[in-house]
Amino acid sequence: MDRSPRIATAAPQPSASPSALARRFEEVRLTSRALASPLSPEDCAIQSMPDASPTKWHLAHTTWFFETFLLAPNQPSYKAFDPAFKVLFNSYYNGVGDKHPRSERGLLSRPALSEVLAYRDHVDAAMQALLAEPLAPEVLALITLGLHHEQQHQELILTDLKHMLSRNPLRPAYQKQWPLTAVEPRKRSWIRIAGGVKEIGFEGDGFSFDNEGPRHRVFIEDFDIASNPVTHGDFIDFIEDGGYQRPELWLSMGWDAVNTRGWEAPMYWEKRDGQWHTFTLRGLAPVERNTPVCHVSFLEAEAFARWAGARLPTEAEWEIASATAPRDGNFLESGAYHPLALRDATPAGVPAQMFGDVWEWTRSDYGPYPGFEPAAGAVGEYNGKFMCGQYVLRGGSCATPSSHIRDTYRNFFPPDARWQFSGVRLARDAR
Amino acid sequence: MDRSPRIATAAPQPSASPSALARRFEEVRLTSRALASPLSPEDCAIQSMPDASPTKWHLAHTTWFFETFLLAPNQPSYKAFDPAFKVLFNSYYNGVGDKHPRSERGLLSRPALSEVLAYRDHVDAAMQALLAEPLAPEVLALITLGLHHEQQHQELILTDLKHMLSRNPLRPAYQKQWPLTAVEPRKRSWIRIAGGVKEIGFEGDGFSFDNEGPRHRVFIEDFDIASNPVTHGDFIDFIEDGGYQRPELWLSMGWDAVNTRGWEAPMYWEKRDGQWHTFTLRGLAPVERNTPVCHVSFLEAEAFARWAGARLPTEAEWEIASATAPRDGNFLESGAYHPLALRDATPAGVPAQMFGDVWEWTRSDYGPYPGFEPAAGAVGEYNGKFMCGQYVLRGGSCATPSSHIRDTYRNFFPPDARWQFSGVRLARDAR
Amino acid sequence: MDRSPRIATAAPQPSASPSALARRFEEVRLTSRALASPLSPEDCAIQSMPDASPTKWHLAHTTWFFETFLLAPNQPSYKAFDPAFKVLFNSYYNGVGDKHPRSERGLLSRPALSEVLAYRDHVDAAMQALLAEPLAPEVLALITLGLHHEQQHQELILTDLKHMLSRNPLRPAYQKQWPLTAVEPRKRSWIRIAGGVKEIGFEGDGFSFDNEGPRHRVFIEDFDIASNPVTHGDFIDFIEDGGYQRPELWLSMGWDAVNTRGWEAPMYWEKRDGQWHTFTLRGLAPVERNTPVCHVSFLEAEAFARWAGARLPTEAEWEIASATAPRDGNFLESGAYHPLALRDATPAGVPAQMFGDVWEWTRSDYGPYPGFEPAAGAVGEYNGKFMCGQYVLRGGSCATPSSHIRDTYRNFFPPDARWQFSGVRLARDAR
Amino acid sequence: MDRSPRIATAAPQPSASPSALARRFEEVRLTSRALASPLSPEDCAIQSMPDASPTKWHLAHTTWFFETFLLAPNQPSYKAFDPAFKVLFNSYYNGVGDKHPRSERGLLSRPALSEVLAYRDHVDAAMQALLAEPLAPEVLALITLGLHHEQQHQELILTDLKHMLSRNPLRPAYQKQWPLTAVEPRKRSWIRIAGGVKEIGFEGDGFSFDNEGPRHRVFIEDFDIASNPVTHGDFIDFIEDGGYQRPELWLSMGWDAVNTRGWEAPMYWEKRDGQWHTFTLRGLAPVERNTPVCHVSFLEAEAFARWAGARLPTEAEWEIASATAPRDGNFLESGAYHPLALRDATPAGVPAQMFGDVWEWTRSDYGPYPGFEPAAGAVGEYNGKFMCGQYVLRGGSCATPSSHIRDTYRNFFPPDARWQFSGVRLARDAR
Repeated sequence: MDRSPRIATAAPQPSASPSALARRFEEVRLTSRALASPLSPEDCAIQSMPDASPTKWHLAHTTWFFETFLLAPNQPSYKAFDPAFKVLFNSYYNGVGDKHPRSERGLLSRPALSEVLAYRDHVDAAMQALLAEPLAPEVLALITLGLHHEQQHQELILTDLKHMLSRNPLRPAYQKQWPLTAVEPRKRSWIRIAGGVKEIGFEGDGFSFDNEGPRHRVFIEDFDIASNPVTHGDFIDFIEDGGYQRPELWLSMGWDAVNTRGWEAPMYWEKRDGQWHTFTLRGLAPVERNTPVCHVSFLEAEAFARWAGARLPTEAEWEIASATAPRDGNFLESGAYHPLALRDATPAGVPAQMFGDVWEWTRSDYGPYPGFEPAAGAVGEYNGKFMCGQYVLRGGSCATPSSHIRDTYRNFFPPDARWQFSGVRLARDAR
Repeated sequence: MDRSPRIATAAPQPSASPSALARRFEEVRLTSRALASPLSPEDCAIQSMPDASPTKWHLAHTTWFFETFLLAPNQPSYKAFDPAFKVLFNSYYNGVGDKHPRSERGLLSRPALSEVLAYRDHVDAAMQALLAEPLAPEVLALITLGLHHEQQHQELILTDLKHMLSRNPLRPAYQKQWPLTAVEPRKRSWIRIAGGVKEIGFEGDGFSFDNEGPRHRVFIEDFDIASNPVTHGDFIDFIEDGGYQRPELWLSMGWDAVNTRGWEAPMYWEKRDGQWHTFTLRGLAPVERNTPVCHVSFLEAEAFARWAGARLPTEAEWEIASATAPRDGNFLESGAYHPLALRDATPAGVPAQMFGDVWEWTRSDYGPYPGFEPAAGAVGEYNGKFMCGQYVLRGGSCATPSSHIRDTYRNFFPPDARWQFSGVRLARDAR
Repeated sequence: MDRSPRIATAAPQPSASPSALARRFEEVRLTSRALASPLSPEDCAIQSMPDASPTKWHLAHTTWFFETFLLAPNQPSYKAFDPAFKVLFNSYYNGVGDKHPRSERGLLSRPALSEVLAYRDHVDAAMQALLAEPLAPEVLALITLGLHHEQQHQELILTDLKHMLSRNPLRPAYQKQWPLTAVEPRKRSWIRIAGGVKEIGFEGDGFSFDNEGPRHRVFIEDFDIASNPVTHGDFIDFIEDGGYQRPELWLSMGWDAVNTRGWEAPMYWEKRDGQWHTFTLRGLAPVERNTPVCHVSFLEAEAFARWAGARLPTEAEWEIASATAPRDGNFLESGAYHPLALRDATPAGVPAQMFGDVWEWTRSDYGPYPGFEPAAGAVGEYNGKFMCGQYVLRGGSCATPSSHIRDTYRNFFPPDARWQFSGVRLARDAR
Repeated sequence: MDRSPRIATAAPQPSASPSALARRFEEVRLTSRALASPLSPEDCAIQSMPDASPTKWHLAHTTWFFETFLLAPNQPSYKAFDPAFKVLFNSYYNGVGDKHPRSERGLLSRPALSEVLAYRDHVDAAMQALLAEPLAPEVLALITLGLHHEQQHQELILTDLKHMLSRNPLRPAYQKQWPLTAVEPRKRSWIRIAGGVKEIGFEGDGFSFDNEGPRHRVFIEDFDIASNPVTHGDFIDFIEDGGYQRPELWLSMGWDAVNTRGWEAPMYWEKRDGQWHTFTLRGLAPVERNTPVCHVSFLEAEAFARWAGARLPTEAEWEIASATAPRDGNFLESGAYHPLALRDATPAGVPAQMFGDVWEWTRSDYGPYPGFEPAAGAVGEYNGKFMCGQYVLRGGSCATPSSHIRDTYRNFFPPDARWQFSGVRLARDAR
């Protein structure tokens, strides 16, 4: 899924001073580069499925954003690094001209990785020069947007790379050393959340994507939310109870997927010597029962919930339930690149691990909030164009930069997508 | 789409006396047969796409329902007409055994149409004998359900047949004589509907499908609903304004459909001598500007609304707006099998043509209402299994039996489906 | 495969007097009709795969041939039965205008079977009037060609119908009564054929398709030909020896077919209660070991030959070996519609069953003979256009009219085709 | 197409002394490496279609051959470089165990190019040690085979790389400098070749693939062969005469390809500013009229011949006509990697450019010669498995090593293949 950058509906936050923004720019840009640093040119060039892009493309496309939307209009003296990149690294179908087909991104041996890194240097230098000048609020807002856009692609670098490495029979690792410590089981309980007319959606001074607003009223009934995400162990129980063989548990589209794609377990699982293993960015590893399950589709999440006698929360329920949840968690910065157990206990009555570890599927399709207005201009051209046939996920994952997530953040994927770090948190009606 | 029958969540209505039900049984069963009466054996046997079933299959499958769910369990002396039909005419994947693949329904030259009609006679006679006995409320409820199930298939007989005839270069007609009179233009206006905490969904004594309940509270803001559906003339304006060539109007999935399927107009339209014509069940006819547009997908409806500076209503908005709308309209019984103009004016401030003529796409995906509980048993086995990736349509069409529709009725199809009589009614936020 | 009629390279045979031709016309035309007489309108309308056409289409297309190539140019007063049929029943892509897509022949419920039969009557009457007049030799030749063309389609009526009936889980029969008597095993031996410079191909006064000529010299080495075709029993032995599981026996294209299509036995075979059965035009029947195997592809024939330590004959070898073979055999007229055992013994040293029962795959691709010249005009337009990627079969089958076959007759199908009555005769190098 | 190595049917030639073989080993192995030397790791890793393999795979697979068939059985002390390579770089489906799917060769970022080059060093050192020992004739024959196998892959490195680079909108060059000089037109004439009983096929002491034998007698009639291949200019004339729009010129399979794939010119052609250009390994270049056309399929060659009033030669005709033709030509060693004009005139009555420049399609399908016997053992396991559905090409191309070609050499590709340097030489019947 190409995530279109979405222009902030709110005014640029006053606190984002140019020098602070310049520091943030440097930090975000370096993070992308650091993610690629353990990789060979071949690792960065290969595309393993149409949905996933090569690391090289991500590195170039995020740079293209700053060149196209910031430097070209605002730096009269700016000289394009290579005019052909305008088409090669465009992911937009209309506003800024032609684009190279998504499914052919893996056919580009040229430009080489080294040239793409030089492109990044070229654009970064020009951007730092721009950031040293006084800039209009709209320009500052657009730079902020570009950085959030790049953070979205940082997550995709990891998930797309994981998919590519998984297709290699050698099961090669992105990084070898594994920072895991022993994981203790954790008891799951239900937490009651009071209903009524509530407000959800973004409002305020900070950055948000436009699909997070406007803030608006919804009515919800009382409900229970699970204190923790569903674990790998829970999912093994589901499998062993015939979960993938029982049509009555599945949506029609899910049962079709099970049968036509041969799903028997979450993505990346394989059985070796009778034990479930899963492919991780650190190589093949035994499935650890006491960590949140990941790489399940909406369809599997929904079947699991039915099996468990529960359901998925709506996105309004999730957002309201997250009010007291701690914001810190296992994000990209932990370097685990895999869900972990909780390191610190959460107080009773407070949901744990809502942020980080795994994106949590909700029962809500990804549609426009009441009063949603697409933003103007090329950057915002396609704000709502993905609002069909996808479902909302919340809370960020172990591949999400921690400064990128919010309680109002709406991620979305088709119901059969499994290559993101997507998991499950259960809900149920209050009884 | 195979529509699974859904068991009534309410108790069977007391007014449905056995003799009244017997009369209704006869009437509904005769209607199906009447729909097939102008057709040849070949017309009834052919399947023109996997989504559409042959008339012969519809006639047999609806009969299979009564044989399987009513006669087999409740008539100990009942002898199956042909045991092989149990598999051939089953559309359920699990609860009642094997089924013949949906996409191969058009490969069955045997049983012949005449045998299927004999099958209907055999089952009808047994059912009338059953209806003459005292029956438990659950049995009466199940018969009522079977009749609503058959009415769903009556609509599909017409839409599937239309698709099949349309694939014939001769453009043959189902019925020749055309009951249309001259059609006058009608002015469209906006009607303001007040928001707040409202209730929607079915509750009460009559029949409903279980997806219509439970009745529950929702919060909506004030909004405007269009007084009339979008017309064929409006859609010609959209086409002539480049509607099918402008990506900014379309959802991403819609733009893909436009390009990969070559959509340039609603389904069944073709240009002859510079004028738009459309294929109808009465043959090819010039497009009549002043009637509601039909055979548009959700994706086209959504693009049209964006072009018109409006949006689709949610299903809650539609249901609330329909409170004052007249229930009569152009249904199956009119014999037009095509949308017509209003015959009688609707008072100012009251939406016109909400019922009949065309199903109206809403912006709501088809999901479970809060508190939705799947019904028990084989008949209700799959109540929610289609609740993924489809959008809700409301109000019935010119192919819907008038006694089949309700204001709470939720029809649903994938966003790219066009072969139903599906149209558009606009809404907008109150300003 | 649409078989294009091919114009006779030889002059029309003098013996074909107008009155004899009129009798032959009546006879051939009645045979087609007789083949359809046990069938319902639905049986005649359905298309079960793109390669196979509905019986109704065969009945109409063969009629279209006479209307288009004989009546339209030679009968000034002739009035077309229905001008639309010109497109609907054309199988040629160019010379005579538009055609209806081959894969959509099963979508035509109209014209009804009864109308097609009326079309036949209309054209037959006009043809008999034409045949009563003095006709130019070219016209007589073209009528003869039309009759051979119709005989080709008679075979296809049976093979295409068989495929369609086989897709019905009821396994319905075309005709019930089975004319088989007990079948005795027959010993297979090798017959030595002397090589040298030989002549093959058609030359003479009678009718032939143009791909059978010109007669020309070839050089072949001495070789052995099998006295009998491979039997069903032989093929069971191959299966039980792991024939379908051993890649070393197969051509690369064959092994792909085995794996991607799940081939485990010849087409139409299924195991019931541990015994192999095969679907026949008389319903499902146990496989009879002592009759020639049929419904095998070139790829299976080739693998079988390798397993048997032999090879397929070339088409030159086949034609030369057939010199002494008896021409009578189990053809369409026997009414068996399935290979039978020999009723009369063939003398030692004379190959048996070369004609009738099953088409025999040769190792020769279907290409032009040296000096082959495409005939002129629309009828002969496509004489050579199928000469790529297909293999030659010889000898006719139980679905071939006996007056249609010759020792020079070249049938051809792609190497994976199995729905014809195609079998195997082995050859080997002389040692 | 994976070309299976084929074991020499003849004994190893006496002249191939161990030290000469060691020198040849070094030379061939260095050539492969030299072909890869201008390429980046990304260039070597990407697979642009299932038929084409990455350069890295070719480098590794040819090395795997020596490791698997020479070192493993003959060097007891040999230690595999990496046991996983046994599966990764196997292209055989059976005899030597599992293999990695052909279409997924482009998913392997690991092993890196540098590791594959180290693998080559490792195996080369062990092979040189082996070559220093006294070796059995069968071992020497197998080494010779491995070198011819590697030469086949040298050609594929260039053709597969060309395809990959062509998919990049930058149209990048493999090598920039272009060694072309001005090209003069050359008159084409017909050369009469006498027919009769002739012998073709390999026989003798040198190396050959087993599909080239046994030498055997054929009968051919007198015929004419063109003095030169069809040129790019001839093909422009064909295009401008509507060659790609006239169904009567095409085989049925060819006309399908034209329509479903949108063929309008040979592969790699594109029109820029009204002039035909073609993509070469030296970048995009204007089409040079006076050089042999390349990148045409059998289907296009056949249509062109029909348009020209001629035909393709059979492979027997080609081999017999080549008797007097000079063996030198524009091979891999020229460094042109594109067809060139003749540098030296050929005497009148002697066909020019039969060897080198472009492979020439024949009208002969690729089948077994009379008496063909598959060789024994794993190396020869699949000798005949490609003998179905492909056509023979003769003479080598500008990407073929000059020491690799023979007059009896049979190359083969499916009739729609275009990414090899394949061209056309016309023939006609003697009149």
